[in-house]
Amino acid sequence: MARILITSGPTRQYLDPVRYLTNASSGRMGAALTRAAIDAGHDVVVVSGPVNVEYPAAATVIPVVTTDEMLAAAVETFGSCDGAIGAAAPCDYMPRLVSSQKIAKTGEPLQLELIETADVVATLGQRKRDNQWVVGFALETEDRRFRATVKLESKHCDLMVSNGPQAIDSNQNDVELLDAGGRVIAEIHGDKDFVADELVRHISEQLTHRTAKPQ
Amino acid sequence: MARILITSGPTRQYLDPVRYLTNASSGRMGAALTRAAIDAGHDVVVVSGPVNVEYPAAATVIPVVTTDEMLAAAVETFGSCDGAIGAAAPCDYMPRLVSSQKIAKTGEPLQLELIETADVVATLGQRKRDNQWVVGFALETEDRRFRATVKLESKHCDLMVSNGPQAIDSNQNDVELLDAGGRVIAEIHGDKDFVADELVRHISEQLTHRTAKPQ
Repeated sequence: MARILITSGPTRQYLDPVRYLTNASSGRMGAALTRAAIDAGHDVVVVSGPVNVEYPAAATVIPVVTTDEMLAAAVETFGSCDGAIGAAAPCDYMPRLVSSQKIAKTGEPLQLELIETADVVATLGQRKRDNQWVVGFALETEDRRFRATVKLESKHCDLMVSNGPQAIDSNQNDVELLDAGGRVIAEIHGDKDFVADELVRHISEQLTHRTAKPQ
Repeated sequence: MARILITSGPTRQYLDPVRYLTNASSGRMGAALTRAAIDAGHDVVVVSGPVNVEYPAAATVIPVVTTDEMLAAAVETFGSCDGAIGAAAPCDYMPRLVSSQKIAKTGEPLQLELIETADVVATLGQRKRDNQWVVGFALETEDRRFRATVKLESKHCDLMVSNGPQAIDSNQNDVELLDAGGRVIAEIHGDKDFVADELVRHISEQLTHRTAKPQ
C-alpha cells in the first residue's frame, strides 16, 4: 500500500492568447496506470494536463495547463507520496516571449525563440528523499534504449519506461522497463490496461516494498 | 435547401513527430452549426480537424489534421456546395522546417521559423462562383470589429462572424454578424446552440435564397 503521484497527459505552452505548443498525449496511459495502481490497493493523486479521458473516481485529480503548473503541483504532491510515476508528456519547450495579444499575420515569417521548460520528472528525481522512488517515461523516435538509459541516470529515476511515438494517442503500447542499472527487466506489449497492470506489478515488486506500511 | 460546407475545429502543425502547434478550438461551434443547418433542412459536409465533439449522424464528416489537408478537403468539397461556413480555427503558422526525428533537448534555446499556412476561408472566397457564398469567422483579441471588417473584405466573404477568445473551448459565444458591407446586422449572445440557430437563420435569409432549389 503506497501513496503514488501519477503525472498524466500533455501540457500547453501558449505563444499568445490563442496559439500554443503541445503534443498528442491523450492521458490514456496515465489513466490506465491510475486504475491499475488503485486496483493494486494504492492511493493515487493524478496531476493531469488537459485531456478527455476519465480518471477513476477513487483518484484525486489536480488539473493543470502549463508545464510550470504541472511542476508546482507535482512537487507539492510528491512531498506526501511514497513514489511518483511520470506518465505525462509535459511540453518541454516554451516561447521565450509570450504575446498578450493575438499575433496578427503579416505575410512575413515569424521568428520564435523557444526555451526549455523545467523537467518535472528530473525535479522529482532530484528531490526524492530516502525510500521515495520515481519512475520515468522516455518517448524517443531514435536510439530508444540508449536515450532511455541516459534519461534514467540524468533524471535520477529508479525505473524507466521506454516507448516510441506510436504510443501517443493510441490504445496500445509497446514498452521496455529498465531498472536503475539500465538493465531491461521487462518487455511489455498490449493494450494500455494490460501494460499498466504489468508496470504496476513490477513497480510494486521493485519499489513499493521499500515504503510498505503495516495495515 | 442548400448544400453547405462547414469547416470545424483546430488543425495541427507538427515541428517533429511529437510536438505541434495548435489552438484550443473544440469544434463545438462547428458541431452546433452543423446541427442547426441540418435542422433547417440543409445538407452538410463537415471538414474537421482533431476534436472530441460528436457531429450529427446526418452530416458527412471528413477528418483532417493539418491546415493543408483542411484546405484540400474544403476546396474539393466546395465545388459541389452552395456555400461554406468557416467555423474552423486552422493553425495559421507552420514551421518552415519539420524534423523527421524528435528534436532532442540540448539546454540551448531553439530557434523556430514559422511561416503562414494557406488561408482556407480566403481560398474559398477567391474561388467562389456566381451564387456561391462564404461565411467567415474572425477571432480577435483587439480591435475586433475593425479587424473583422478587414478580413471580410480581404477574404471575399459574404458575411463575417466576429467573436473573441472567450469563445474558444466554451459552451457560450458572443458574436457580431457583419454583412458584406461591414454593417453589423445582428448581435447574438448565448450558448453555442442558440448562436448557431440564429446564425443559420440569418445565413438562410441573406444567402441561401440565392441558391434555393425547388423541392
